[in-house]
Amino acid sequence: MSVYEKLEALNIRLPEVTQPVAAFVPFLRSGNLLFVSGHIAKTEGKPWVGQLGRELSTEQGKAAARAVAIDLLGTLHGALGDLEKVRRILKLMVLVNSDPSFTEQHLVANGASEFLVEVLGDKGKHARAAFGVAQIPFGSCVEIDLVAEVE
Amino acid sequence: MSVYEKLEALNIRLPEVTQPVAAFVPFLRSGNLLFVSGHIAKTEGKPWVGQLGRELSTEQGKAAARAVAIDLLGTLHGALGDLEKVRRILKLMVLVNSDPSFTEQHLVANGASEFLVEVLGDKGKHARAAFGVAQIPFGSCVEIDLVAEVE
Amino acid sequence: MSVYEKLEALNIRLPEVTQPVAAFVPFLRSGNLLFVSGHIAKTEGKPWVGQLGRELSTEQGKAAARAVAIDLLGTLHGALGDLEKVRRILKLMVLVNSDPSFTEQHLVANGASEFLVEVLGDKGKHARAAFGVAQIPFGSCVEIDLVAEVE
Repeated sequence: MSVYEKLEALNIRLPEVTQPVAAFVPFLRSGNLLFVSGHIAKTEGKPWVGQLGRELSTEQGKAAARAVAIDLLGTLHGALGDLEKVRRILKLMVLVNSDPSFTEQHLVANGASEFLVEVLGDKGKHARAAFGVAQIPFGSCVEIDLVAEVE
Repeated sequence: MSVYEKLEALNIRLPEVTQPVAAFVPFLRSGNLLFVSGHIAKTEGKPWVGQLGRELSTEQGKAAARAVAIDLLGTLHGALGDLEKVRRILKLMVLVNSDPSFTEQHLVANGASEFLVEVLGDKGKHARAAFGVAQIPFGSCVEIDLVAEVE
Repeated sequence: MSVYEKLEALNIRLPEVTQPVAAFVPFLRSGNLLFVSGHIAKTEGKPWVGQLGRELSTEQGKAAARAVAIDLLGTLHGALGDLEKVRRILKLMVLVNSDPSFTEQHLVANGASEFLVEVLGDKGKHARAAFGVAQIPFGSCVEIDLVAEVE
């Protein structure tokens, strides 16, 4: 199955490239490296607001991280025209809006990591750093940026 | 106008390379990539102390982010000898020292992003991640690192 | 002295590659760049729990950062088969689990930075960003990821 067939089987429709709300660009390519800007979690087109360990559960955070990964794929598709041109996802930085008492950032981040492997297979296996931050723009619960190797 | 003419028109004098206060180097080059260490916001040569959402306003944070971007340009100049050798700013990581109630990290970060585009033009357009952190060395309000593509 | 002789002189035995506890890989190579996942501080095989400025002192945090750097070297050894294939450590991101009152992240991070220079010499000199985060997976006190240039 191609990446697109897998997405269809999962009933996922990729969004357009997520346009930054500020003075920067959604992605930038340098040689075979594609740098993708931090994408915040959204639900129904608006920031998915909340802090883990306070308003949101680990499961909700995981769902939010998965939603961000879908948006990141949308941006990759927009950047490359074809997701088959992704050679590998190299690195994810997963920021979890965390109350200081919350220590399951790795489980939240799995929402994105597992989705990328599910859809991209071995190409989706990436290095990662996940940690808890004090806040995220618009109060969103998760933000993720990535570096990919592309054709 | 050259980058230096633009800086002069803005009445900006680039500082020397910002020397780390710890056991690391201000920048490192690998092929066409230049990795620049995190630079903290300073005012009058001392850490620009304060937390957004507590002691500092969004406007003050934005000014601090702009000040960091000037220091980053100073380091790029020192690294390359000539800012015209910057092909593109690829990626900024903007850390905003944030009270958990503060959610305008993107506006603070614009202080750096807008300045880079103002001075470097299209070469200054970058991918970015901006988020709120619990603290920054010396209590500084903003810290930024970057990756640039260079000649 | 080779890297391994230095490690032996320091009475350090490298661990095996640190296996992620979640859906990602410990390292990934792209051309001459090696991306290494965030490694959390451990002591006696378990997460080294605590927050700087609260339960742990700067000296303890520095020791934890050094412990992470040893684990990172273990992962580099596992990735490359031979640490002599490390051309340079390019970039460290050092996350310090911080109470908002703690502002010595740079001193904590030096525990890793000084160790890398001690063992790898000039190849160990790196660019760096160090900052305070709200939490780290498992409540660990320090997390570090890195990018290295390799043969």
